[in-house]
Amino acid sequence: MPTLLIRNVRPMGASPVDVLVRDGRIADIGAALSAPADAATEEGGGALLLPGLVEGHTHLDKTMWGMDWYRNEVGTNLIDKIENERAFRHASGHDAAVQSLALAKAFLALGTTRLRTHVDVDTQAGLRHLEGTLRTREALRALQQIQVVAFPQSGLLGRPGTAELLDQSLALGADVLGGLDPCAIDGDPVKSLDVLFGIADKHQRPIDIHLHEPGAMGAFSLDLILQRTEALGMQGKVAVSHGFCLGDVAERERETLLARMAKLGVVLITSAPPSRSVPPLMACRQAGVTVVGGNDGIRDAWTPYGNPDMLERAMLIGLRYNLRRDDEVAVALDTVTHAGALGCGFEAYGLVPGNRADLVLVDAQTVAHAVVSRPVRKLVVAGGHIVARDGTLEAEIASL
Amino acid sequence: MPTLLIRNVRPMGASPVDVLVRDGRIADIGAALSAPADAATEEGGGALLLPGLVEGHTHLDKTMWGMDWYRNEVGTNLIDKIENERAFRHASGHDAAVQSLALAKAFLALGTTRLRTHVDVDTQAGLRHLEGTLRTREALRALQQIQVVAFPQSGLLGRPGTAELLDQSLALGADVLGGLDPCAIDGDPVKSLDVLFGIADKHQRPIDIHLHEPGAMGAFSLDLILQRTEALGMQGKVAVSHGFCLGDVAERERETLLARMAKLGVVLITSAPPSRSVPPLMACRQAGVTVVGGNDGIRDAWTPYGNPDMLERAMLIGLRYNLRRDDEVAVALDTVTHAGALGCGFEAYGLVPGNRADLVLVDAQTVAHAVVSRPVRKLVVAGGHIVARDGTLEAEIASL
Repeated sequence: MPTLLIRNVRPMGASPVDVLVRDGRIADIGAALSAPADAATEEGGGALLLPGLVEGHTHLDKTMWGMDWYRNEVGTNLIDKIENERAFRHASGHDAAVQSLALAKAFLALGTTRLRTHVDVDTQAGLRHLEGTLRTREALRALQQIQVVAFPQSGLLGRPGTAELLDQSLALGADVLGGLDPCAIDGDPVKSLDVLFGIADKHQRPIDIHLHEPGAMGAFSLDLILQRTEALGMQGKVAVSHGFCLGDVAERERETLLARMAKLGVVLITSAPPSRSVPPLMACRQAGVTVVGGNDGIRDAWTPYGNPDMLERAMLIGLRYNLRRDDEVAVALDTVTHAGALGCGFEAYGLVPGNRADLVLVDAQTVAHAVVSRPVRKLVVAGGHIVARDGTLEAEIASL
Repeated sequence: MPTLLIRNVRPMGASPVDVLVRDGRIADIGAALSAPADAATEEGGGALLLPGLVEGHTHLDKTMWGMDWYRNEVGTNLIDKIENERAFRHASGHDAAVQSLALAKAFLALGTTRLRTHVDVDTQAGLRHLEGTLRTREALRALQQIQVVAFPQSGLLGRPGTAELLDQSLALGADVLGGLDPCAIDGDPVKSLDVLFGIADKHQRPIDIHLHEPGAMGAFSLDLILQRTEALGMQGKVAVSHGFCLGDVAERERETLLARMAKLGVVLITSAPPSRSVPPLMACRQAGVTVVGGNDGIRDAWTPYGNPDMLERAMLIGLRYNLRRDDEVAVALDTVTHAGALGCGFEAYGLVPGNRADLVLVDAQTVAHAVVSRPVRKLVVAGGHIVARDGTLEAEIASL
């Protein structure tokens, strides 16, 4: 991979500097760097420089990105959506390998270089979706760091054999173990979480649990999760996705839960949906809880919305939490950059020499300007490789 | 203006037809129309055809669209934002004529052909912002229908002389009289609304009142508004913008208020902000209340967010109300098309022969696809004129 010197970019909107990239890493950042003899040079033209964007929660395997329009006529209950999707994917032959690759590449073109995806594992599809997504992870390994979460979308206890499939998923190379609503879906929270944490403990892998349960029910499940995190010494290895209950419960109970989460290093991952109660972003951060942003599903059998632009997700998070001041909009961006990387455990992240060279150039005056205007990505560098210009993937990557 | 034949477009996603435009109107819609000798022909290529988009609530005069980035460091209270903005506009010489024209043209490029804008009238700026915005209305008259609302942003009663300025605004040609929080800002709801309705009655103009007041306070003000609407025979001439209280009050009280609004033809206009309670869209419509969508402010001293893309506003409305099924997403679009036009009183609207030829072509498979993907506007026709292609205004309009 060639050495690369990027001239005249403004890291997070600061004064212009040059960035030297060598062997996939940021080698130097500073004013008027001298060009090594072997360096290719890119002119940044005063662009705003962001670190590669981070998607903390999506479902690459479910998407219909690039396919014919899916007419959504699904009922409103969670279980309707789960049943509808599993049946649709079974009947249609929806291909998780093809679809996850298409969407992951679209993420890359828009500057997302690290990504956590939950992949359906169930007794109807078996490990088919997981295997397809692992192929995408492998195909893009040099460019995009993908964490695959083995996710029991149809429940862990209700369909016997699911626990064994999750166990096999981790043996096959899934990075993280997923979970889902131990009360509302599994109906037996103690057993559900004991089985789940048992599998994670056996494989020594992190856990990321979808917790949609509202109010007192969700807080009850969260308490059980925190108990097990502590008992098994899984500090820093557990994430709760959604955690809507933290937006419902009274402030005193919320503060107690957040303090325990912070102490145990339990991360909160949110898409900040505007149609329901969400954990209060600033209160979570003030309590010391790392908050990560994500899209959730993108154009799938659940939802027609979403796209692989993490600047748009930062904007939606900013809108959801009414973040208007420039310093507040920067917090929205943080959930899909530094806090995102920290919460998911992506290492060597950020615009500092020694870190992986994941760079995004946009024409924007400030960080807040980039979030609200979501400009074309002028240049995307991933793992030291130029992967996209002006929103378009380089040909050799587009053809993967 | 030349006669125009647009071939092969799909109205709202229906089967392909041709559209004949003559003298600024839709002359005919049907399969394989024969081309009149004097007609220019445009190939639609199977694009989805939408009627011109409608912006029901914005503030063209406040925007910093196209200006240097404004660093927002404003406090969180409503009054902080009001005072900050008035002082900033006074000190900076912010030019409402220039800025309103820039934003209105950006709206036009994205297919918005009808637009209602609230313009600040206060004792510091006098009628300066109004006069500037009236110039924009005049400059774009043949293309974009702009309703100018004379809006007492700094309150009606608190700064003596404001009522006289509003009176002068209507005499000068403002289309609609604006109002603002008769309890929370004016502190004397009966007097505030009596003065306001008195001015509207004198000039026989419609009213559009910003009602941010939450819960019981807002419901109290709304009751006073409905009383005066009935007493003055202003049925069908009153709109409430925001109406957040309708998202707070108990269902029974809400249903009573909505039934009265429906009976009096009082319209609800909303930007559907995700960070606070909003009137329930479907319940409003089911009660017979017309609900109109709008951006509210766009990149101004209040908020860095917003842009002139009404498909994006439809998407945000869809997200806010969790509208996922295709028939539900169509409702989100309706707020910025047919319901928008109906609620604001824009006439001769829609894809029917005889109506004004306001047409938007996008590459999308269905209406829902257009809302979630917000595609480039392939062609925009306004009042029978081609005004933009592929997102770019025609040169003679860009130079206005």
